[in-house]
Amino acid sequence: MDANGVKQHLLSKPLNSPQTDKKELKRNRLRRCKSAPLAEAVPQEANLNGPIQPSNSILRNLHPSFKRVAIILIFYLGIGTVCFYLVRNEIDGEKTNDLFDAVYFCIVTMTTVGYGDLVPGSALTKLLACAFVFSGMAIVGLILSRAADYLVEKQEILLVKALHLRNKVGPTEMLKEIETNGVRYKCVTAFILLLLLIVAGTTFLALIENLDIVDAFYCVCSTITTLGYGDKSFSTEGGRIFAVFWILTSTICLAQFFLYIAELNTENRQRALVKWVLSRRLTNVDLEAADLDNDGVVGAAEFIIYKLKEMGKISQEDISLILEEFDDLDVDQSGTLSGSDITLAQSS
Amino acid sequence: MDANGVKQHLLSKPLNSPQTDKKELKRNRLRRCKSAPLAEAVPQEANLNGPIQPSNSILRNLHPSFKRVAIILIFYLGIGTVCFYLVRNEIDGEKTNDLFDAVYFCIVTMTTVGYGDLVPGSALTKLLACAFVFSGMAIVGLILSRAADYLVEKQEILLVKALHLRNKVGPTEMLKEIETNGVRYKCVTAFILLLLLIVAGTTFLALIENLDIVDAFYCVCSTITTLGYGDKSFSTEGGRIFAVFWILTSTICLAQFFLYIAELNTENRQRALVKWVLSRRLTNVDLEAADLDNDGVVGAAEFIIYKLKEMGKISQEDISLILEEFDDLDVDQSGTLSGSDITLAQSS
Repeated sequence: MDANGVKQHLLSKPLNSPQTDKKELKRNRLRRCKSAPLAEAVPQEANLNGPIQPSNSILRNLHPSFKRVAIILIFYLGIGTVCFYLVRNEIDGEKTNDLFDAVYFCIVTMTTVGYGDLVPGSALTKLLACAFVFSGMAIVGLILSRAADYLVEKQEILLVKALHLRNKVGPTEMLKEIETNGVRYKCVTAFILLLLLIVAGTTFLALIENLDIVDAFYCVCSTITTLGYGDKSFSTEGGRIFAVFWILTSTICLAQFFLYIAELNTENRQRALVKWVLSRRLTNVDLEAADLDNDGVVGAAEFIIYKLKEMGKISQEDISLILEEFDDLDVDQSGTLSGSDITLAQSS
Repeated sequence: MDANGVKQHLLSKPLNSPQTDKKELKRNRLRRCKSAPLAEAVPQEANLNGPIQPSNSILRNLHPSFKRVAIILIFYLGIGTVCFYLVRNEIDGEKTNDLFDAVYFCIVTMTTVGYGDLVPGSALTKLLACAFVFSGMAIVGLILSRAADYLVEKQEILLVKALHLRNKVGPTEMLKEIETNGVRYKCVTAFILLLLLIVAGTTFLALIENLDIVDAFYCVCSTITTLGYGDKSFSTEGGRIFAVFWILTSTICLAQFFLYIAELNTENRQRALVKWVLSRRLTNVDLEAADLDNDGVVGAAEFIIYKLKEMGKISQEDISLILEEFDDLDVDQSGTLSGSDITLAQSS
C-alpha cells in the first residue's frame, strides 16, 4: 500500500549531513535543486481528499491524521455498542455483562475475528452484523493506512536508540540511520510488538481464562489472524474487557507486520533495479535518446530524467504534462526559462 | 499496495496515438526522450526477487507470475489436505466426506474465515492449524498482489467493450480508455464480480443448504469478510465442494475491491497534487532553485526535474545517486556527456 512511502521517507535530509567526499566540491554546482519545495509544502487548498497522499509518510504521520482515525474509531464503537446493547436479547451465546458483551461483540465483528461465542439470533441483528463488519473492515483499513504507521514510527526511534546505546549517536545520525534502514526497523519493531502482544495474550488466557498453555497459544493465533474458530474464546467479564483492547491492537499489529514485509520486499526490488540502471553501460543510442533538447550532448538534468525513466520512477506522461506547462511559460521560445519569460507569461 | 501501479499503467503508449494539437510541432524537439527504455526492458539478471517490482503492472501481470501463484496455491492446498486428512480423527465437528472436509478445513483456515464447524481437537492439530493460518495468510497476500489483478484486468477489457458496444471502438481507443480510467474500471469490475459471487453464494445456500434468504445472505457476508461466526456454514458434502472454490474467490475478490478503492483514492489525491503543482505560479525564487547547472536560465529538463520533485514523485536522493554516476561518466568535466566521454569513462 505504501511501497514508496519509504522512498519518500528517505529524502528527509540526506544532504544536510556533513560529508567530506572528494567528489563533493565538484558536485556542488549541481546541488542547488535541493532547495526545491517538496510535496509537504503543498497548501491545504490542494488537499482535496484529506491528507494529501499516502505515499508521503511525513504528511500521513502527523498528529491530526492519527487523531481523526481515533475519533472515527470511537464514533464507530460507540454506535456499535449502543446498537448491540439495544438488541442484546436477540443475541445468542455465552453472555457476561450486557455492556461489555456489546463492545466485545462489536470488536470481534469489526476485526472479522468472529469467534461465534456470541451470534446474532434474529434477522435484524444478522443484517446489523453484516453492516458492521463491512464498515468495520473499512475502518481497520483506515487505521492500517494511518495510525498504525505513526505509532510504529514512534517505537522505531526507541529501538534505534536501544541498539546504539553504547555508541551514543546524536539525533542527526539516528535520523539518518532510520532513513537508510527505515522499513527494516519497522519490520523489527512490528515483530517485537507482535511478540509482546502474543505473550500478553497467552499469559492472560492461561491465568484468567484458565486455558492450558497450548490452548491459550492456539486461541491467540486464531485471534490475531482473525481466524476465530471460536472453540476457545474470552468467556469471562474481565477477559472480554481485556479482549476489546488486545484484539484490536494485535490484529492490526499482525496486518501491519505483513504490510511491512511486503514493503521491504518492494524496496529491495526497487533498490536492485536502481542499482542495475545505474551500473548499466551507457551506449551512444542511450545518449541520443536522453538528449531531450537535441543539442548533441546530454546535460546533467537530461541524464537524470533518462535514468529516472529507466528506473520506472517517472513515466512519459509525467514528462509530457510538465513539458506542456514549460512551453506555455517559455514565451520567447528560447528553450529556456528566464525571469522575463515568467513575467511575460503571467501578465498575459 | 500498488498505488503507482496505475501511474505506470498509464504510460504504456500515450504518445503514439495520433494527435493534431497545435502545440505538437513546437514540442516535438523535446520529445525524443520517449525512446528511453522503460523498466520493462530490464533483463532477468537484475530480477533478484522474482518479477521486478510490484509498481510495474505490466511485469506483474504477465502469465508466469499468475502461474507461479497457482502452483504455490495448489502445493499449499495439497500439503494442507494431506495433513488434515491424516489427523482427521483429531478434528471435531460436523463431518461429511473425509477428503472434502480436509480441503474445506484448509480453505476455511487459510482465508481466516474460521467458521468453527470443524475445529482442531488435539494439541497437534491446534498447532498445525496455527502454522497453516499464518502461511495461508501469506499466500492470500501473494494472490492479492499478483494473480487477482491479472484476472480483473482481463474482465476489465470485456467491461469496456460492453460499455462502448454502440460506439464500435478500436483496440487502440479501448486501451487508451483503460489507461485513463484504469482504476475506476477495476473498481467497477471487482464490484460486479463481487455482486455475482454474492448472488451465487446466497442462491446456493438457499437452495442446497436450505437456509432462508436472510440466513443465506448473512452467511455469505460473514464468509466474504472472513468473519465466519460459524452459526451458519456449509454442512453438506456438495456445499463443502462448492465452498472450497467460492470462499477462496469471494474473499479475495472483496479484499481486492477494497484495495482498488484505496488505489482510486490515492490516484485522485495524486492527480489533485499534480494539477496544483502544474497550475502554481512560478516565482523567481523557484527559477533560481530549479536552475540545476547554475547557468542563470532553466532548461526544459531542469524544469521537469523541479516539478517532479515538487509533485513528490522523485526525491533528492534519487537525483544525487544519478548525479554521482553522471560525474563519473563526465570525464572531461564539461558538464555534459558526449560520445567521447562515454568511450573514455568505459575504457578506464
